[in-house]
Order: sequence, then C-alpha cells, then structure tokens
Amino acid sequence: MTPIERLVVVGVGLIGGSFALALKQRGLVRRVIGVGRSQANLDAARALGVIDEAASLQDAMVGADFVLLATPVGQMPAALARIAPGLGVGAVVTDGGSTKGDVVIAARQALGARFRQFVPAHPIAGAEKSGAAAASASLYGGRRVVLTPESETDPQALARVREAWQACGAIVIQLGAAEHDHVLGVVSHLPHLLAYALMHQVLGSARSTTLLDNAGSGFRDFTRLASSHPEMWRDIFLANRRALLAGLDEYEASLASLRALIETGDAATLDRALGDCRDARDAWLARRAGGAALGNVDA
Amino acid sequence: MTPIERLVVVGVGLIGGSFALALKQRGLVRRVIGVGRSQANLDAARALGVIDEAASLQDAMVGADFVLLATPVGQMPAALARIAPGLGVGAVVTDGGSTKGDVVIAARQALGARFRQFVPAHPIAGAEKSGAAAASASLYGGRRVVLTPESETDPQALARVREAWQACGAIVIQLGAAEHDHVLGVVSHLPHLLAYALMHQVLGSARSTTLLDNAGSGFRDFTRLASSHPEMWRDIFLANRRALLAGLDEYEASLASLRALIETGDAATLDRALGDCRDARDAWLARRAGGAALGNVDA
Repeated sequence: MTPIERLVVVGVGLIGGSFALALKQRGLVRRVIGVGRSQANLDAARALGVIDEAASLQDAMVGADFVLLATPVGQMPAALARIAPGLGVGAVVTDGGSTKGDVVIAARQALGARFRQFVPAHPIAGAEKSGAAAASASLYGGRRVVLTPESETDPQALARVREAWQACGAIVIQLGAAEHDHVLGVVSHLPHLLAYALMHQVLGSARSTTLLDNAGSGFRDFTRLASSHPEMWRDIFLANRRALLAGLDEYEASLASLRALIETGDAATLDRALGDCRDARDAWLARRAGGAALGNVDA
Repeated sequence: MTPIERLVVVGVGLIGGSFALALKQRGLVRRVIGVGRSQANLDAARALGVIDEAASLQDAMVGADFVLLATPVGQMPAALARIAPGLGVGAVVTDGGSTKGDVVIAARQALGARFRQFVPAHPIAGAEKSGAAAASASLYGGRRVVLTPESETDPQALARVREAWQACGAIVIQLGAAEHDHVLGVVSHLPHLLAYALMHQVLGSARSTTLLDNAGSGFRDFTRLASSHPEMWRDIFLANRRALLAGLDEYEASLASLRALIETGDAATLDRALGDCRDARDAWLARRAGGAALGNVDA
C-alpha cells in the first residue's frame, strides 16, 4: 500500500496503539500523532515509540490523511463531531469500535457529506489489557477485522482502509452493520456480560471470601472477561443493547432447558446435550487451529 | 508417610492416574492396581507406568491397604458397594469426587461399620482433559484438596489420607460436606453449566456457523469448561443439583440486576458495577499469585 503520511490515532490504547505499531514496523506510516485524555498514557505511548507526538485533536488533524478512532464507543459521537471540521477531502477515517450500528449513525450525523470517507471497522482482537503499554505490532496478525461499509461509502476509501488493516496482518471480511452487531452480541458481548454477572454474584454474596478461597482454574478462565476495561464494556453493552438483550433472551432459554434436565434428573438427555456442546466446541477449535495455520483465525 | 503397599485406583483417569503417578514418583507406593471399564484406557495406563497392573475390582481388593475411588460421581454408589466386601479392616478409602454430600450418603450406606475408614475428598484440580493419558505426577502440586470427614471418621484414617494427598503436593483443607457442596456449586459447577449453556445456545441457533466463524478468544476462554467430560459433569450437576440450582437462582438475580442497568441506560452505576468486578477479580488473582509463590494455590 502507499504509505500513510500523517496518521492520527484518537485513543492510544491496545487497539489504536497496535495499529500504529504494526504500520510503523512495516514502514507504512511517516508520522503518527496521538490524541487522548490521559497525558500519562500519551507520554508512555511516545516513550514506547507507539506515537511520534501527542497533540490536540484540532492540531492533529491538520494535514492528516488517515484517522483511526479507537476510543470506547461511547466517546465516538463526540470524537467524530470534533474531527469533522478538520477532515480533508482526501483523508479516510476508520474506527476500532466493537459495535457498528451506533457508530454508523453517529458518523453519518457528524460527518455529513464526508460520511463517504468513513469506513467502519471492528478488529476482533480483544484482550483484557488496556493502555498504550499493552499495544503490540503483532496484535492483528491472523486476526479478523470486520468492515461494515454503507451504500454511501467511497470505494477508494474502503480499499484504502482495507489495505491498512491487511497490512497489519489482519484477515479482513465484510458484514452489514446490523448483522455484525447481532453476531458479536452473541459471541462476544454476551459472554462478557455473563462473566461479569458471576463476579457480581460472588461479590454480593455474604460468603464471598470462602467462595473466592475455593475458586480454581475453571472460575479463573470463566471470569477472565470480567477483568476487561469497565468503561469500554459499559459503552459496548449500552451501544449494542438491543442485540445483546436479544442474545441474552436466547441464553436464558438455553439455560432454562438445561436446568429443566437437571431438575427432572433426565440424565440421558443431559449427557447428550453436554456431549454435543463438547463435540461442537472441539470441532470449532480444530477449525480455528487449521485456520491459524493459514493465518486465518480471529484470535 | 509410611508407603502404601497396595493402592487400588478405581477409575484411572486424570484424577486417579495423577494420584498414582505422584505417589510413585516419590516412592510412596509399592504396587498400583487399576480398575476400570475401558480396557484400552487400562492398557494405556499400564504402558505409561500409571499403574502396575489392571485387575477386576474383586481381585484388586485382596490385600489392598489404600483405595482411591476416582470414577464420575454417578458411579460412586455402585463402586462403593463393590469394594465393601473386600475392604480390609486396616485399609483406608478416599475419593476424588467433585460433590461430597451424595458420596457421603452412598458411602455410609455401602460401607456400614467400615464407613469410618472412608475419608471423602475433593481435589480441586479440574482440567477439561480426561483419561489416563492426561495424568501427571505434578497435577496436585500447590492445588487445594478439600476433605469432608464426618463425625464417625476414624482419626487415623483421616491422618493417613491427609498425608497421602499432601505427599502429592496438595494443600489439604477441611470443610463440612454441605458447605463444600454449596461453595463448589457456585465457583465450579455453576460456571461449567453457564459455559455449556452458551455453546448449547449457539448450537441451537439458525446462524450457528456465522456465529462460530466470528467467535474470538473471549468466546474460546468463556466456553473452555464446555469441553469438559460430559458424563462427569452430568453426574456432578445431578448429584449437587440442590446447591447448583440455588447458585443458579443467585446468578439469575445478579444477571437481572446488570440487565436492568443496561435496559435503563444507567451508565454510571453500570460502570461502577463492572469496575468493582474487575477490581475484585484482579485482587483475587494477585492473592492467588502470592499463594502460588508459597505453594498455596488451588489451580
């Protein structure tokens, strides 16, 4: 791809910082400008070579040809409104938000005629770590990035953004924004909520100390997602609430059907149901492992 | 500890096999006899040096001074009934069952006057792997083993069984059987059920292929427990159904309270709730890491 002259990264955390590092490592960006709320994080980003300089959003936008919005999704509307005035006609904008329907609405409203320069993206590269110190040039290697262009999206902007994510090592696919939000609502947002709910239950218990003292590796892995960034996940839960709650309804029904088998002591059906789950998961893991060998795996 | 002369392991899988290997490695057992349903697994166990010979339960019990029952808990009543006739007066029996109330009831009924020789145990060393090939001499190193002796339990039998688990590297603690079942119902059995329920939901979805294609590392870790042994977990769910379903009721309430915050868009309270979860989990992980440095960690 043609190198980016001036990359503005709004929100220099795991997602934004890793994008910058990956492109830098491949010599595909000349200058990276970081914008963020935390001076300490920006200082760390500069010290680690993730960005070349920190600036206000207004200053950063002068001459920018590529903008990545990598803030929690709740801050996207404000960030979009603030980049709009300084967005040059030849520049492209993408984002790293975990929800897409809400970001598309905000972008259409904030960018007006320049909405065509915006290519919504979701890199499926979650990790419970956050901040510039967590950024890594290899984060996107073999991971899946979902682009959700709209009918107005400029094909050249789409191609440019696609190339950039691919240059980071990602496997780029396209989905409609609504389809994306439904699918991710079930396979990503819902498990986060479910993991938080177990920690929330244990914390609210009168015997939480005894519970935690006797919790083992199963509890540790199941609750890993509850160590995720609270503000980021609050925003995702709220932004994608419709799809998330629909997924939660399905989950409650699934749980109720297993519960009924336990209550009635239907050992044979329960055994089959659990066995089907194990078989399906093991087959999925095997497909992922095969995909990973081809660089085709999302996490 | 004084070495075991003849150790009978009923169910030569991860739990039983690792117990045998750990004692063998330390020179604390002279002969290990394996009993099981699968000839292929027993052959593998012998080939791997996990057991010295395979035998019928009746033959195995002749001269046995230490018996470990490591079958799925659903098979414990039958196994207990079958070891009872050949159980010598000086022998001790322990088990590796993940539930204790039901095993205590079954043992009291099957063993009669020799119930005093039985020391109920639960090694908290879960892994989704099963079979003799998964056994490891180091499985119990630093892990927690919960003993749940009853008032009739012979103090010498208790000391002997405690020593054996400690010799495997385990940290041995004691709880009442009902307390054990409640605590493990929440921190272990419940997360297993919740993980199975998400896989069950995805499998039952009309778009399961799209869902799985876009599932990432969060989904992978959250559902790890759904790759557990179906028969073992069916038995645990049924054996501990009362405590498990009580824990599930608490979980549903916790989930409903988070759901309400999402539905009403109460961002501030949701943010605090998620942050409290993260803080509590991170503090727990730090305590575990500290414990691990002292060999005091359960998984």
